[in-house]
Amino acid sequence: MKTRAAVAFEAGKPLEVTEVNLEGPKAGEVLIEVKATGICHTDEFTRSGADPEGIFPAILGHEGAGVVVEVGPGVTTVKKGDHVIPLYTPECRGCPSCLSRKTNLCTAIRATQGQGLMPDGTSRFSTLDGDPIHHYMGCSTFSNYTVLPEIAVAKVREDAPFDKICYIGCGVTTGVGAVINTAKVEVGSTAVVFGLGGIGLNVLQGLRLAGADMIIGVDLNNDRKEWGEKFGMTHFINPTEIGEDIVPYIVNMTKRGADQIGGADYTFDCTGNVKVMRQALECSHRGWGKSVVIGVAPAGAEISTRPFQLVTGRQWLGTAFGGARGRTDVPKIVDWYMDGKIQIDPMITHTMPLEDINKGFDLMHHGESIRGVVIY
Amino acid sequence: MKTRAAVAFEAGKPLEVTEVNLEGPKAGEVLIEVKATGICHTDEFTRSGADPEGIFPAILGHEGAGVVVEVGPGVTTVKKGDHVIPLYTPECRGCPSCLSRKTNLCTAIRATQGQGLMPDGTSRFSTLDGDPIHHYMGCSTFSNYTVLPEIAVAKVREDAPFDKICYIGCGVTTGVGAVINTAKVEVGSTAVVFGLGGIGLNVLQGLRLAGADMIIGVDLNNDRKEWGEKFGMTHFINPTEIGEDIVPYIVNMTKRGADQIGGADYTFDCTGNVKVMRQALECSHRGWGKSVVIGVAPAGAEISTRPFQLVTGRQWLGTAFGGARGRTDVPKIVDWYMDGKIQIDPMITHTMPLEDINKGFDLMHHGESIRGVVIY
Repeated sequence: MKTRAAVAFEAGKPLEVTEVNLEGPKAGEVLIEVKATGICHTDEFTRSGADPEGIFPAILGHEGAGVVVEVGPGVTTVKKGDHVIPLYTPECRGCPSCLSRKTNLCTAIRATQGQGLMPDGTSRFSTLDGDPIHHYMGCSTFSNYTVLPEIAVAKVREDAPFDKICYIGCGVTTGVGAVINTAKVEVGSTAVVFGLGGIGLNVLQGLRLAGADMIIGVDLNNDRKEWGEKFGMTHFINPTEIGEDIVPYIVNMTKRGADQIGGADYTFDCTGNVKVMRQALECSHRGWGKSVVIGVAPAGAEISTRPFQLVTGRQWLGTAFGGARGRTDVPKIVDWYMDGKIQIDPMITHTMPLEDINKGFDLMHHGESIRGVVIY
Repeated sequence: MKTRAAVAFEAGKPLEVTEVNLEGPKAGEVLIEVKATGICHTDEFTRSGADPEGIFPAILGHEGAGVVVEVGPGVTTVKKGDHVIPLYTPECRGCPSCLSRKTNLCTAIRATQGQGLMPDGTSRFSTLDGDPIHHYMGCSTFSNYTVLPEIAVAKVREDAPFDKICYIGCGVTTGVGAVINTAKVEVGSTAVVFGLGGIGLNVLQGLRLAGADMIIGVDLNNDRKEWGEKFGMTHFINPTEIGEDIVPYIVNMTKRGADQIGGADYTFDCTGNVKVMRQALECSHRGWGKSVVIGVAPAGAEISTRPFQLVTGRQWLGTAFGGARGRTDVPKIVDWYMDGKIQIDPMITHTMPLEDINKGFDLMHHGESIRGVVIY
């Protein structure tokens, strides 16, 4: 079949909206009609050429929602008409990682996915001239139709709006999941979120959902104070305005208890800046502070600290896809949205047709959008 | 009263065995007759002048065992004649840290202990000329008699030999506790221990006690292979003999399961070398590997890694006193020793009277002793 898609033909170039060929699903695969897709910084990281593992030409996009239109041989867990969210982190339920009960990082199709291919080592996409086009993060939601492995789709309820729940395919789950699955924040906790972009706002609402008491947001942009407050932030810090180093500043403002030792129970880096990651660790509480790295750092950048920080009880963690098991946890997050436990609508600041997808990248680049969504 | 003690009058100088004055216990304090004390690298770290927080003159020593000879007013939890192990990490059971259930790092007397003083801000030790001598880590077990806060002694069974259980005051608890309390190693795990000195050997036997399957020891000294095997090590690596970087080497030797992803479930640094700390993190398993820093790094040294290591599921932790709550956990470890669940006797390679304590430091310095113990 043919489908319209935004193709990244070369690193650093705008996407090109065009018709491409799409082969139907092979065994264990499903064909999805994508109804909506978010535009995420990770897409831009690859599009720009900054991603050392980027492969071109490719159809980017990994934050979608849609409907199953056809299933390949042997597919049993979804059927035509099911509403689904594509998963860049699949959940096979049979690999050592899925069986470990300790991680969401399923390894069943890791090697081929990293090469921009389906599990059989081939691509379903090609140009009208017949040249292959790579898949991206196993999703390629910047195409109106796409093929995914069965283990890489989460079946979700049918009354949930595609143009909102697509965001659960990456940003919402990453932020909310980092709080719930990775940090395991308890009611009454004190927490700091560095960087109040889309991920940071979702960490904030994850903290609100988890019942944190003091939820401190940090951003260089004062406009983000109002945004943060919408999602549960109780205190805002602009590091350029406090006149001192942010670590002692946060330690001071979080002092509590008889010994007046400050520091946050949980801190989250949503900036990708390795210096901020260090600050996030060091302003966490002696004895038990957990600091979670969410942001993606530039290639080659390294985090560092004195080991004393760890020896005195701080823990340095990271998270990918919020520690969520896609097929198990994503449908629950859709329920939370539909039940009003988390918000998505205010974060979708811009929508556009596929033709305007490059404008969506521009909006993100200039910090004008929280989340731009393409509606097919 | 007067007592014999080995005094560190100046950084970098040998200890001087001499008589000193010791005031009796004040309210909430106990007077202990020290029966035996281990000599630990931390004592040497301070004695040598490398410790930026070292204070002189001081009576070092923090790994002892002895008998209560007098209690001050208000002391209720121990009485004259009780056998005890001094605790450089006290357990007050009332401060925010003790009540957190998340850390063993009691803060009740932290400030004064760090200044070499009892909780009332004074010292019980002085020279015969009346000049004050500082306490050290709240213990000062290089004195035949010493005074400690009640919250800094663990009451232990009376049939346990002082010259062995003194080692539980630091090395044994640090190593075994890192496995049990900090890493929480499960039966069947794969683990790597970097550095097979006294702490490393205790980590090995902690892993054996916890039921780990594959217990890899790493040391530059081939003599440590036989030592490691006595305490449960199943595989030995001398990094200078493998002809490749140790991280991929360990990842390869720990490959298992259908996806053949290697890496240890748990790794422990017992070297204090920040480069080794990084190796320990990076050879832990994608998705769930926990790496625990135990070794004390030189002042100013920093650990570093790519944040990708954390984002893909590795956790960087540290431990102090093996995460053990002194009064609660130390008596249990004494029981484990008496029940034969852990060994101590073979590790006590040298004993000596107090007069020869500087020889004990020399043996440790030259790597000839696992643990030297002063018997009073």
